[in-house]
Amino acid sequence: MIRPRHDYSPCLAEKDEQKKREAAVTEESPMRLRMEKFIKEQQQIIVKELERIDGKKFRKDEWTRPNGGGGITCVLQEGNVFEKAGVGVSVVYGSLPKPAIMKMRENHKNLDPDVESLEFFAAGLSMVLHPSNPMAPTVHLNYRYFETANPDGSSQAWWFGGGCDLTPSYLFDEDAIHFHKTIKEACDSHDKTYYPRFKKWCDKYFFNKHRGECRGVGGIFFDDLDETERDQENTFAFVQDCLKAFLPSYIPILEKRKDMPFDAKEKEWQQIRRGKYVEFNLVHDRGTAFGLNTPGSRVESILMSLPLTASWKYMYEPEPKSREQRLVDVLKEPKEWV
Amino acid sequence: MIRPRHDYSPCLAEKDEQKKREAAVTEESPMRLRMEKFIKEQQQIIVKELERIDGKKFRKDEWTRPNGGGGITCVLQEGNVFEKAGVGVSVVYGSLPKPAIMKMRENHKNLDPDVESLEFFAAGLSMVLHPSNPMAPTVHLNYRYFETANPDGSSQAWWFGGGCDLTPSYLFDEDAIHFHKTIKEACDSHDKTYYPRFKKWCDKYFFNKHRGECRGVGGIFFDDLDETERDQENTFAFVQDCLKAFLPSYIPILEKRKDMPFDAKEKEWQQIRRGKYVEFNLVHDRGTAFGLNTPGSRVESILMSLPLTASWKYMYEPEPKSREQRLVDVLKEPKEWV
Repeated sequence: MIRPRHDYSPCLAEKDEQKKREAAVTEESPMRLRMEKFIKEQQQIIVKELERIDGKKFRKDEWTRPNGGGGITCVLQEGNVFEKAGVGVSVVYGSLPKPAIMKMRENHKNLDPDVESLEFFAAGLSMVLHPSNPMAPTVHLNYRYFETANPDGSSQAWWFGGGCDLTPSYLFDEDAIHFHKTIKEACDSHDKTYYPRFKKWCDKYFFNKHRGECRGVGGIFFDDLDETERDQENTFAFVQDCLKAFLPSYIPILEKRKDMPFDAKEKEWQQIRRGKYVEFNLVHDRGTAFGLNTPGSRVESILMSLPLTASWKYMYEPEPKSREQRLVDVLKEPKEWV
Repeated sequence: MIRPRHDYSPCLAEKDEQKKREAAVTEESPMRLRMEKFIKEQQQIIVKELERIDGKKFRKDEWTRPNGGGGITCVLQEGNVFEKAGVGVSVVYGSLPKPAIMKMRENHKNLDPDVESLEFFAAGLSMVLHPSNPMAPTVHLNYRYFETANPDGSSQAWWFGGGCDLTPSYLFDEDAIHFHKTIKEACDSHDKTYYPRFKKWCDKYFFNKHRGECRGVGGIFFDDLDETERDQENTFAFVQDCLKAFLPSYIPILEKRKDMPFDAKEKEWQQIRRGKYVEFNLVHDRGTAFGLNTPGSRVESILMSLPLTASWKYMYEPEPKSREQRLVDVLKEPKEWV
């Protein structure tokens, strides 16, 4: 823990470490600690299930940040089912300078504009799975919690964000329907307006503007869910249910596709679609840009989302009326799946 | 040519088209037309030489922009020597809105701040060659000219930019020395301060900040060379000499490396280095970002710079004291090659 020597009051990270040493995290603990505990549990559950399916173990790297926080990055490469699978938890403590506070105030009016800096906490679970079989879709998930703290360590502003989306190389309508239906059920049990809003948000966000096409067949995406939307307990419960819906939304699809026959041309098409996945992540994704521009960030954990291999062919066009062309058509005009 | 119907004075693109119809481009013609002519000639010379070496022909796409200008994109894919080679000329006519003018004034005080918009012209030759053999280095080149016009079509502000840099997967010192030496000679014949300045600029620009390493072993890079530096004729002559130095700077290296033996592990290392090339181009390169954010730009011409295939392995580390590690060491601490 590196701090200026003249500052003897413990920082937020130190206060939280002490809390965790003194007592187990319960429903009475601050949301920071509850979210961290929850996503770490979910990471273990997901990793275990993916290891069962693949038959190969994840490599697990635990790392710490010099000013508080750290994470666990789990990656499985060149497995039996997955070309590359990454499931990562990160916890960040830091200090927001005034310009960052002013920018965040655009979405969060309850942030105090009269301070020079604010301590913050951010925690999230991120996952990208790239299966080897071109018939099995890539999937991405991210759920995160952000909080700023008053000087006494109490929470000031907070919000949740995240989502989950599916990116096939070959489109099976029944897969897209199953994926969306499972997520919609998790949303509906909290608020009937959530799924339609967050589905649209997802199509808009995971969009390769320069290609004029969506990254995949969507899912849900939301950000900045704070107390102007709903109270903290209910929002946390919603995020928990979304995350728990991941395995039932994706695993049945994977089981159905992972051993399907495919030929070299279908593998090549997957590689070309992977190239567009790389384009979205490196050119448009705000989370990746934020990570890469944060000094001291763990680059390998951020870029675990990239596929093992990708390809760029100049002016590659699928044959008219082919399955490949149908995917592109749907990516250009997102569908309502449920 | 699409223009508002109430505007009956010819735009800059129309004036230039008329000029080209009426008479051949000579040393008395505006710099716009001379630069366009020069880079198109050079494109042909370079394409012809690369076809000779590869034995396979380039695909040539001529395209036009709805509001004036266009280009010629030449790409050779899966050749005998080149995995992917792109040599493109683009010519753009357009109108700069006030905010863009104000931003450009930071570097060009002679831009008129009292107009609502300015017609501009931009032309450039861009090239990226990715050879198949991991012992043969990737090379990138770009030379460009930018000009704003007064309402009567006369030139207002102008500047040249560009450069050339080498990106090996396996470092042969003699190659880096030959490449730098050839470029330095072209620079020295114009100004002895150019090479040292532009070599440093190159190391600084082609830098993967998030990895803390240069993209390759450098070359030269410069931008915004206008009349505060030197007059237009001399600067054009300098750019011409730099571009003409390309073939002698690169071809001897390619001839030496293109048929060297290599194994699967060396090919894999090349793929990993290609991944970092993609990262630079999509995350940091201003030209790529500008292109992808320009409405109506030809995405396939911009992204012809990406390799045919690339790879991302989580936490891949070369063996200590290996040739692969030596490359990374040099990328982290740029060398003086001449």
